Amino acid sequence: MICTVRDSTPADCRDIMRLIVGLAEYEKMPGEVKLTHKELEADGFSSSPFFKCLVAEVPEELQSREGHTIVGYGFYFFTYSTWKGRVIYMEDLYVMPEFRGKGIGKALMCRIAQIGLARGCVRMQFTVLDWNKPSLDFYSDQGAVNLTAAEGWQLMRFEGEALEKLAQATN
Amino acid sequence: MICTVRDSTPADCRDIMRLIVGLAEYEKMPGEVKLTHKELEADGFSSSPFFKCLVAEVPEELQSREGHTIVGYGFYFFTYSTWKGRVIYMEDLYVMPEFRGKGIGKALMCRIAQIGLARGCVRMQFTVLDWNKPSLDFYSDQGAVNLTAAEGWQLMRFEGEALEKLAQATN
Repeated sequence: MICTVRDSTPADCRDIMRLIVGLAEYEKMPGEVKLTHKELEADGFSSSPFFKCLVAEVPEELQSREGHTIVGYGFYFFTYSTWKGRVIYMEDLYVMPEFRGKGIGKALMCRIAQIGLARGCVRMQFTVLDWNKPSLDFYSDQGAVNLTAAEGWQLMRFEGEALEKLAQATN
Repeated sequence: MICTVRDSTPADCRDIMRLIVGLAEYEKMPGEVKLTHKELEADGFSSSPFFKCLVAEVPEELQSREGHTIVGYGFYFFTYSTWKGRVIYMEDLYVMPEFRGKGIGKALMCRIAQIGLARGCVRMQFTVLDWNKPSLDFYSDQGAVNLTAAEGWQLMRFEGEALEKLAQATN
């Protein structure tokens, strides 16, 4: 393996933000990233963090064309199934284009699975866009099941005014 | 409102388990509930809980035919969006059939939205089965967006042998 996979530290936040934007561009929604460096640092590196983040780091001599050594990240947290118990949720998995095809994504994903099992999780979940066939194939090849296709689960969301209105509903 | 919505305590775990099974029956997957009372209590009521659970309680005089006063629950935890920040995730929302149509589900959902906003969440997410039109309509009427339909998000999962195998992949 050409990289090291390790837990991130606050000093990695600038690189993580760069990679978050890279993933949003790949997913064709670059304008959607409203998160700030300050929020990322406060929410992930306090005493009660909202998430955990792994980074994949290459040696200096293998740095990217722009001089980066942090070339991928895996972003996760713990959720829960009332049917099965503890679940590890992989929110993001991303490797810079010039470092793909070297097993870095697989190494990050593998580490998240290990962390989940060590914490007693019985499932690892995540979402993928339906047009992203390379990723769907990659995950399916590893044994992942598409629950939306198999069972019909739809992901739903309240945000903005709808969320505010819901919170203001009189009981 | 005929009920009180409050945080659950370990003493409510027996009722919560009964309602979890009730929801699984409604979702036509009753055999899927493997969670035990002991796991529910350990994972939800320790110093670092994996989830939070609200219960809806009616007065004794309005108890169910079988003598229950805990007639609904809302099960949630906090997740995170690398685009937008903090998210509150509603894993389950359920009201016993004989207590439906009285605003209890709405009251539970409203409280979860309030808790989310108070914690700085900008989104409230959840999943619904595609054949469950009454629920899809109920949530849409409140302003929820179906992200699977609108953007194509597919929910994916590793579990069992596939998860073990992923964790054992050599880097």
